Amino acid sequence: MKRHAHIVFLALMACGYPWASTSAQSPQRPNIILVFLDNFGWGEPGFNGGGIIRGAATPNMDRLASEGLCLKNFNVEVQCTPSRSAIMTGRYAIRSGNGTVPLGEGVYGLVQWEVTMAEMLSEAGYATAMYGKWHLGRTPGRFPTDQGFDEWFGVPNSTDESTYSSLPGFAESGLSETFVMDGKKGSVPEKVRPYRLDYRPLIDRELTNRALSFIEKNAEAETPFFIYLPYTATHFPTRPHPDFAGKSGKGEWADLLMQIDSYLGELMAALKKAGVDENTLVIFTADNGPEALSPGETSLTVETAMHGSAGPWRASLFTGYEGALRVPFAARWPAAIKAGGVSDEIVHAMDLYPTLAALAGGKVPQDRVIDGIDMSEFFLGKKENSGRDGFIVYMGKDVFGVKWRNWKLHFKEQTGWNGVLQVYTMPRCYNLLTDPQEVDNVFFPHTWVAKAALPQLEEHVASLKAHPPIPTGQKDPYVPPAALEE
Amino acid sequence: MKRHAHIVFLALMACGYPWASTSAQSPQRPNIILVFLDNFGWGEPGFNGGGIIRGAATPNMDRLASEGLCLKNFNVEVQCTPSRSAIMTGRYAIRSGNGTVPLGEGVYGLVQWEVTMAEMLSEAGYATAMYGKWHLGRTPGRFPTDQGFDEWFGVPNSTDESTYSSLPGFAESGLSETFVMDGKKGSVPEKVRPYRLDYRPLIDRELTNRALSFIEKNAEAETPFFIYLPYTATHFPTRPHPDFAGKSGKGEWADLLMQIDSYLGELMAALKKAGVDENTLVIFTADNGPEALSPGETSLTVETAMHGSAGPWRASLFTGYEGALRVPFAARWPAAIKAGGVSDEIVHAMDLYPTLAALAGGKVPQDRVIDGIDMSEFFLGKKENSGRDGFIVYMGKDVFGVKWRNWKLHFKEQTGWNGVLQVYTMPRCYNLLTDPQEVDNVFFPHTWVAKAALPQLEEHVASLKAHPPIPTGQKDPYVPPAALEE
Repeated sequence: MKRHAHIVFLALMACGYPWASTSAQSPQRPNIILVFLDNFGWGEPGFNGGGIIRGAATPNMDRLASEGLCLKNFNVEVQCTPSRSAIMTGRYAIRSGNGTVPLGEGVYGLVQWEVTMAEMLSEAGYATAMYGKWHLGRTPGRFPTDQGFDEWFGVPNSTDESTYSSLPGFAESGLSETFVMDGKKGSVPEKVRPYRLDYRPLIDRELTNRALSFIEKNAEAETPFFIYLPYTATHFPTRPHPDFAGKSGKGEWADLLMQIDSYLGELMAALKKAGVDENTLVIFTADNGPEALSPGETSLTVETAMHGSAGPWRASLFTGYEGALRVPFAARWPAAIKAGGVSDEIVHAMDLYPTLAALAGGKVPQDRVIDGIDMSEFFLGKKENSGRDGFIVYMGKDVFGVKWRNWKLHFKEQTGWNGVLQVYTMPRCYNLLTDPQEVDNVFFPHTWVAKAALPQLEEHVASLKAHPPIPTGQKDPYVPPAALEE
Repeated sequence: MKRHAHIVFLALMACGYPWASTSAQSPQRPNIILVFLDNFGWGEPGFNGGGIIRGAATPNMDRLASEGLCLKNFNVEVQCTPSRSAIMTGRYAIRSGNGTVPLGEGVYGLVQWEVTMAEMLSEAGYATAMYGKWHLGRTPGRFPTDQGFDEWFGVPNSTDESTYSSLPGFAESGLSETFVMDGKKGSVPEKVRPYRLDYRPLIDRELTNRALSFIEKNAEAETPFFIYLPYTATHFPTRPHPDFAGKSGKGEWADLLMQIDSYLGELMAALKKAGVDENTLVIFTADNGPEALSPGETSLTVETAMHGSAGPWRASLFTGYEGALRVPFAARWPAAIKAGGVSDEIVHAMDLYPTLAALAGGKVPQDRVIDGIDMSEFFLGKKENSGRDGFIVYMGKDVFGVKWRNWKLHFKEQTGWNGVLQVYTMPRCYNLLTDPQEVDNVFFPHTWVAKAALPQLEEHVASLKAHPPIPTGQKDPYVPPAALEE
């Protein structure tokens, strides 16, 4: 509890501090590529015991991990939109009104008041680009190019929408299709083409092509760059690119593993060719756990095959279990991050915002709560501890539980990703080291864990009261109410 | 089906053939150390994505894997005694009357008629030793020193028996305790001390010490040696050695991981020091999947904490699921096995018998069915395929299903290791590549898998009819009936 309070204090103090200048040994600020896969479970890459057992070796992912820092306990929010909200803002998604994926047609996403990672890095002098899936707004004023990205090519919403035009009933619904969009900062992105099943297999190739060009262009201009690369391929419907369809001989999922790994290899080769390999920080991670089934569930259709793997962790995306929360993570930056690092320290997607700010000389906003912790010293190997003891586990807008060190305190239970969410009459307690499947409730005799874990929830709840969350569906402009006493 | 039949044919033809002489490039026959852990899940070692997330890094296990051949699809029988029977004989345990762990006090284990791996290697000129847990007989004539080992130090039965003397009621039961035993070929092993909780944490240290001495002695004498090292530590009750208790700071299981990994390091260092590192084949594997819980089960007592991990695979020991069948496997032999090999080819514990025979110049008996396949060329990297397409999955004496390539055909379902075994009205089919948790029955449309997988079961059943299994509890002497027409 003490430690936690201390960390929050440090995190707030660090806001906007020009870290780069405080550390004489700090290298030049890096180019940054954030590869962000969709619904990609902890158990997929070879570096987490996957690869070949998933149908295809993943040499480039594995190389990224072995030549950099591999985090075994990197956590995200458990749904797509919340996770993307948290990584872009450094804040719990609930604060930004993005606790769940949007299902209706209402306004959603990030209000203009939020300062995204792209805005922060742009302000710090980075050329910024995003290629891929946004899922944080689909209306003018809420596109990536409205939120700090110099350019964007991709889709505003989710990938399942690529099936819409092929489904009976949709054409007569009066609903509009999703479009592939292309835009530059300062103008409304253009609709390039409808996002349909014909383009579904091809899009990630185009995302890669554009990333390759952006690397080349900015390396030549010696402009520091930030590429946010939220690939779409690993989300259903599973449709490998023709270059990879059938290539693994082990099914479409394995083809996709090869495809993504190969694209990663292309990016790394391009960095080398452009002479910026040494000073580029490549982060490889994902938005949430896999599409996978829990016992009793069955695949809905062939299109939603639910064929991912969370490795040893329980369940899938859209649950409060580790299978949703923990995703693969590797960060390679030869000039500054030592090769071969492996850590089980708790890190959350929200932490990337202040961490990248520190590494890139960016300013973290001081007029709002930033839940992320600056872990730059941990990433650079100057500290063994990440500084984070735990976090609140949300399942949508519900507090599912609290993670604290190797323990989880659950208030709720889920039968599966699309199953029933039930409330326990008494919290249950799980030891993740000895029980990665979170099945063995050891609340007795470990009631002490509640004492250690609950203060962070109390602090979080108090902070939400003092700084009320932005309402879901909030339209712009948004003006935050004055902070109440925390 | 064709391929399978061909393999069986080859396996039978290979019996006793002096392989060493057929391959001019073959290296000198190796010393062999078979490290065989107890109830050690696929997900434990770092090389399978475990290690640090299990509480302790496993650098020596990982080194063994990276400097040798790492098999991701190495399979065993799902219980202790059956697995040990299969590895020692190269035959399905059901053939030897060892389909289940013995629970009563009747005669059990291997009849003298069986020719164990130790007898085969002894015959080929190897000095043979076993240090550890046997579980294949506890009566004179059935100890390891009656079955080919020059010497043995360890326990005849299972490790839970170390708790007996501390349990209420046992003292008055009239039952005898298990003893730690020490013996040489040609005499009845001596009872060294009762196997109680005071010695439980210490025994694996002594097993290691004896293995170190055996390495040194035989390396000096230039005698090829075989050490079978079935460690006991990872079976419940979890009791790390005082040298390791508390050392990890992550609980007793993590302490044990450190302990076993450290002993492995000692063995490897001893090989180097004795100058036989290059030409020693060290195999690291386990008897069956972990002690772990399935949803709905709870730990029985603190002593049986059920805290293992099968990694991505379903369930635990004593089930027909992959979590029981797949165990970690690494084989290092610098003189002959290329470093860095990783394979998902199906290999079964039974295959080690003919494979080691081929590598060591031993003779495989020709007067009985050997279910194992000689995979020496696969191990040596001369072939990419193991030659095995699948095997029969037994849960005790029940045929639970059939594994064929990346598919499983299940006839039964289990709620957990100590739960209910139920019979399906129609087989279910699982795709292990896309569904490692074996939850998504895809029998339709994959009925073709039954056509591909069932011939091996039909052949197996025909073979059991032609060569009736040795009855469980069979006393010596055993004389096999004449083979019927297969």
